[in-house]
Amino acid sequence: MIIQLLLTGSEIIAGDTVDSNSATIAQKLLPLDISIHRKVTIGDDLALLVDEIIKLSTDSDVLIINGGLGPTVDDLTAQALAIANGDLPLKLDEQALQHVQQWCEQRGTKINDANKKQAYLPQDSTLIPNPVGSAVGIKLLLNDCLILCTPGVPSEMKLMLDEQIIPMLQQEFSLRGQTHISRLLTFGFGESTVQQLIDNEHGNWPRHIELGFRAGIPLVEVKVTSHAQAHRAEHERWCDKLAEVLGAHVIARVSGSSDISLSSIVIDLLRQQGKSLTTAESCTGGLIASMITETAGASDVFSAGFVTYANDIKEKILGVPGQILEHHGAVSQRVVIAMAAGALEQSSADYAVAVSGIAGPDGGSDDKPVGTVWIAWGSANKLQSKRLRFRYNRKLFQTLVAATCLDLIRRELLGVTESPQYFFDRKA
Amino acid sequence: MIIQLLLTGSEIIAGDTVDSNSATIAQKLLPLDISIHRKVTIGDDLALLVDEIIKLSTDSDVLIINGGLGPTVDDLTAQALAIANGDLPLKLDEQALQHVQQWCEQRGTKINDANKKQAYLPQDSTLIPNPVGSAVGIKLLLNDCLILCTPGVPSEMKLMLDEQIIPMLQQEFSLRGQTHISRLLTFGFGESTVQQLIDNEHGNWPRHIELGFRAGIPLVEVKVTSHAQAHRAEHERWCDKLAEVLGAHVIARVSGSSDISLSSIVIDLLRQQGKSLTTAESCTGGLIASMITETAGASDVFSAGFVTYANDIKEKILGVPGQILEHHGAVSQRVVIAMAAGALEQSSADYAVAVSGIAGPDGGSDDKPVGTVWIAWGSANKLQSKRLRFRYNRKLFQTLVAATCLDLIRRELLGVTESPQYFFDRKA
Repeated sequence: MIIQLLLTGSEIIAGDTVDSNSATIAQKLLPLDISIHRKVTIGDDLALLVDEIIKLSTDSDVLIINGGLGPTVDDLTAQALAIANGDLPLKLDEQALQHVQQWCEQRGTKINDANKKQAYLPQDSTLIPNPVGSAVGIKLLLNDCLILCTPGVPSEMKLMLDEQIIPMLQQEFSLRGQTHISRLLTFGFGESTVQQLIDNEHGNWPRHIELGFRAGIPLVEVKVTSHAQAHRAEHERWCDKLAEVLGAHVIARVSGSSDISLSSIVIDLLRQQGKSLTTAESCTGGLIASMITETAGASDVFSAGFVTYANDIKEKILGVPGQILEHHGAVSQRVVIAMAAGALEQSSADYAVAVSGIAGPDGGSDDKPVGTVWIAWGSANKLQSKRLRFRYNRKLFQTLVAATCLDLIRRELLGVTESPQYFFDRKA
Repeated sequence: MIIQLLLTGSEIIAGDTVDSNSATIAQKLLPLDISIHRKVTIGDDLALLVDEIIKLSTDSDVLIINGGLGPTVDDLTAQALAIANGDLPLKLDEQALQHVQQWCEQRGTKINDANKKQAYLPQDSTLIPNPVGSAVGIKLLLNDCLILCTPGVPSEMKLMLDEQIIPMLQQEFSLRGQTHISRLLTFGFGESTVQQLIDNEHGNWPRHIELGFRAGIPLVEVKVTSHAQAHRAEHERWCDKLAEVLGAHVIARVSGSSDISLSSIVIDLLRQQGKSLTTAESCTGGLIASMITETAGASDVFSAGFVTYANDIKEKILGVPGQILEHHGAVSQRVVIAMAAGALEQSSADYAVAVSGIAGPDGGSDDKPVGTVWIAWGSANKLQSKRLRFRYNRKLFQTLVAATCLDLIRRELLGVTESPQYFFDRKA
């Protein structure tokens, strides 16, 4: 089965918007054993759009068109389809009109001409419901090709894919997907290190168990794909081997896709153990607290965080002795340990993580260059500490430092005794 | 001049990587008056690649190919070009070999066969230097089309574009770019409201001053583009009119691209006025502090932030009276005002912003549904407060609430007296 994508939108072709929809579509179709063959992107240009629809429909079984269903004059997909389909006029679709009317009512506004435009669909086409947005999808058979039009808004596109298009494709093409995907999410190794470690241990990796790597800051994902039910047991065995090679750097092993993060794992571990966590942040400036509280249910395990950016605040709020700050500097082992101890006392939490470092671009010295960080973590009777060096720009520095803090707490909660081999730790 | 893009890479077509390179290319070419006509994306498939190169070269003046220049067997661009170019064998390019050798030496490794593969280029082609990576670019004339191959690594691609390809295009096509781009960054209006306001006031908007809109959470950008030096003064006059229509919702007006954010504006205003800011966060959980400290130089104006997620912490750390919490609940006017006052006292900052709300998905009530937020902001002798309602998922809720807090401080610092018309404020 050949499936192609047509993306339309001047904001995409001009680079004002980065297209993530086509990645979503590809990922969601893979479990059905469908790979995208080819993808074409063009601006909001009617003639070009008609031309592409005709060309793509003649050499595909399925064509998914994304974008151009909105209310404005730039949105040309329905019109282009009508022209490609024998230049028949658009028809007012009663169901689409009702949908747009309801959508407007829910927002307390009256339907206007721009909204109404979205209810005009090509002849012979049927509507694909949009449960959240005003733009309905369109289904049309042209040149023996099944054309499916989806809205450009990512959240609407995703829902339409899950609820309408995937079941439709499964039914119409009798797809019984045998593709199985596992993901090992790792923290602390670089992509090339992960690959090297696997090559060293398993040079005989079988071809039918596909191995892929994706560096998505701060995690590196190892993706294992197999395409037959008969390979399922073997698939799992190779995943076991991977998990062994990568050790405690594996933070999660999941089937399909997932939105597991370091903070969601830390929250789950704390909840399971009935424990709580507090944060004392200098160079990360609230990012660790923010990563924790992004997860629903964080309040079960997190009640207080302290952003102590200035020295006098470290002293006043967390009780870090002024002499220590003066003698050792804010970026020092003694200071982060005192910050962690102060945060534990102020918050009555069971665990703390404290961090002080030089995010840059300014503020470094020979002794403590930009990128130097001290981290302290643990409980009141067992505080550990570590100095690391991150050679990245400010934003990446903050992200990786915050993730490292969460990973150190994760290892503590799991009782991991072996030291992490962080890739940024080589020449610290 | 017709310019097309060909993107190659199985990780892109499979959706494991989101392509941002083509957006970068489009944005960097626009000031030369070049718009991308069409973009095709395919996987690492030799036959498909050869076919596309031939087709695209016959209907383009310039074809930029991105990806497929790496050392692995998946990287097929040079080979595909050689086949498309009369199936001539690849030649070992001495300059490319030297480059790869040097690149390996600098990393303390010896050149291997995989590296050496990168030194084989198509006959008749010339090398495009890569100042940072191992993969050199390739320039080849085929079917009267100038083909330029660039590496897939975004940082390498950007440098090659700036240092090699843009000067090359300027010279070969005598381009003297007259395209001028202005951006008005706005906060608080939805995209459709911005469009409506402009339509209402300026239905006579001239066609040669192009208007575009981009919703990039939390800001909506209004982009004004003109293509002739002769239109420059008029361009600026229409920008002035836009600024007038959109009022204090415009947070910045810039030429070209910029990385201005709400927090960078707030930091600059505070610095100019010699003032400082503190934060007291409940539902945003550290995000406001994190947005502020993401900007270098934040320490000039920000010394302390408080994440008081639990009631007892609000009481202990910020001195919010227990009775108020009990009588009015954590999400209340009295509580956020007490949080702001407490943060001002603890930090000695000049301004504070405090926020308490229900991020969801749980925790709402009839009286205070999910999405309800109280914000307090200002200085010790003038604290204002506001109740708002944000009907979004948890992450978007937190992002928009944090941005609103920064916007309210921005308005305070600018002395704006008119009330903001936030789009999420309609049925608060």
